[in-house]
Amino acid sequence: MGDQRPAPPPSERARVSRVPRRATYDRGIVEAILDAGRVAHLGTVRDGAPVVVPTLYARVGERVYVHGSSAARSLGALEDGFPACLTVTLIDGLVLARSAFHHSVDYRSVVVHGTARAVLEPEEKLAALEAFTDNVVPGRWREARPPTAGELKATAVLWLPLDEASAKVRSGPPADDEPDYELEVWAGNLPLETVVGAPQPDPRLRPGIQLPRSVRDLTG
Amino acid sequence: MGDQRPAPPPSERARVSRVPRRATYDRGIVEAILDAGRVAHLGTVRDGAPVVVPTLYARVGERVYVHGSSAARSLGALEDGFPACLTVTLIDGLVLARSAFHHSVDYRSVVVHGTARAVLEPEEKLAALEAFTDNVVPGRWREARPPTAGELKATAVLWLPLDEASAKVRSGPPADDEPDYELEVWAGNLPLETVVGAPQPDPRLRPGIQLPRSVRDLTG
Repeated sequence: MGDQRPAPPPSERARVSRVPRRATYDRGIVEAILDAGRVAHLGTVRDGAPVVVPTLYARVGERVYVHGSSAARSLGALEDGFPACLTVTLIDGLVLARSAFHHSVDYRSVVVHGTARAVLEPEEKLAALEAFTDNVVPGRWREARPPTAGELKATAVLWLPLDEASAKVRSGPPADDEPDYELEVWAGNLPLETVVGAPQPDPRLRPGIQLPRSVRDLTG
Repeated sequence: MGDQRPAPPPSERARVSRVPRRATYDRGIVEAILDAGRVAHLGTVRDGAPVVVPTLYARVGERVYVHGSSAARSLGALEDGFPACLTVTLIDGLVLARSAFHHSVDYRSVVVHGTARAVLEPEEKLAALEAFTDNVVPGRWREARPPTAGELKATAVLWLPLDEASAKVRSGPPADDEPDYELEVWAGNLPLETVVGAPQPDPRLRPGIQLPRSVRDLTG
């Protein structure tokens, strides 16, 4: 991927050190991967040790937003922010090589290094909540009850800039060692796809409420 | 989940602080989630900042193994080890509440805190590589060419103990605020499932090689 758009890494820590030929710093590719994911893994540091938790997120323009946990305050989000790393990984398939050594997965991933800060402006926070909701199901925001002022206040939202983001993509046939192509071993790719199953209405759903547009669009 | 098996957290940092009622420290649940995943997110600390990268992994007994990256040496894996956090997240569905605020996803996740160390014994390293391969596709190890002594030596494998592991599970209908159940808004769950598509043989596959047992078992 990096071969096509040889943009340089924006910083030393954003430089991909492992299999750098699969890396790219192209903003369009970074944004496309972020927009295709639903859950990110957010890394922070506590007492010198890393903490990685899954979280809903969304990108809006040049920023990526995450629900701030109870950690936000203790980590200093309201003051100077804190060092964070947000990673989004999409698994596209399984790669079966002839040798055990070269087994892998097809994937697209983005790593965003930066300083996480609390969103302070109510308008920006509301836009982030809209993006979270529509990142669960596109178009859902306009169907659901909007946040109250109290909910808005109770929700901590953090943001990271995309300045130090990198993407990594692995795709294509297995990369076996040349002599191994003679082996009597099947090799190839197994695509993985995430499918949406039949909607399960809330047992407490009031009678007569039809499936909404967002769900019909998603489930075909 | 935590209500059923009220085992105490094994350490302060292993204690789940966010929505602790969804947390459990039951080893059986932790292992089942780890065994159902294919890709983990490994967190480390570099220059005081977190770094989170996706990686293949596998559990064997009381340990979880990851492919050691080029980071392993610089982080001191061969000496005292280094602080790490390994997180595995499985997304089971989308949760559509009546309010935007309560939208969520159904998930199962495990967070393992601990000290990552390099595997030094060749037998243990070989067992880890077998587990990695079979965690890509069950039964694949016995079909593929085994690692050579050189490959084994070139591969860094790290391990973490499961002593400080916690699991978190979210499932079931949306949890709306009581007054919202009167709203004319559809609510429910959309299950997500990962399906394996049609095998794509390597373009360089030698003629006459049939689909192996492992792939037939996986693709039905």
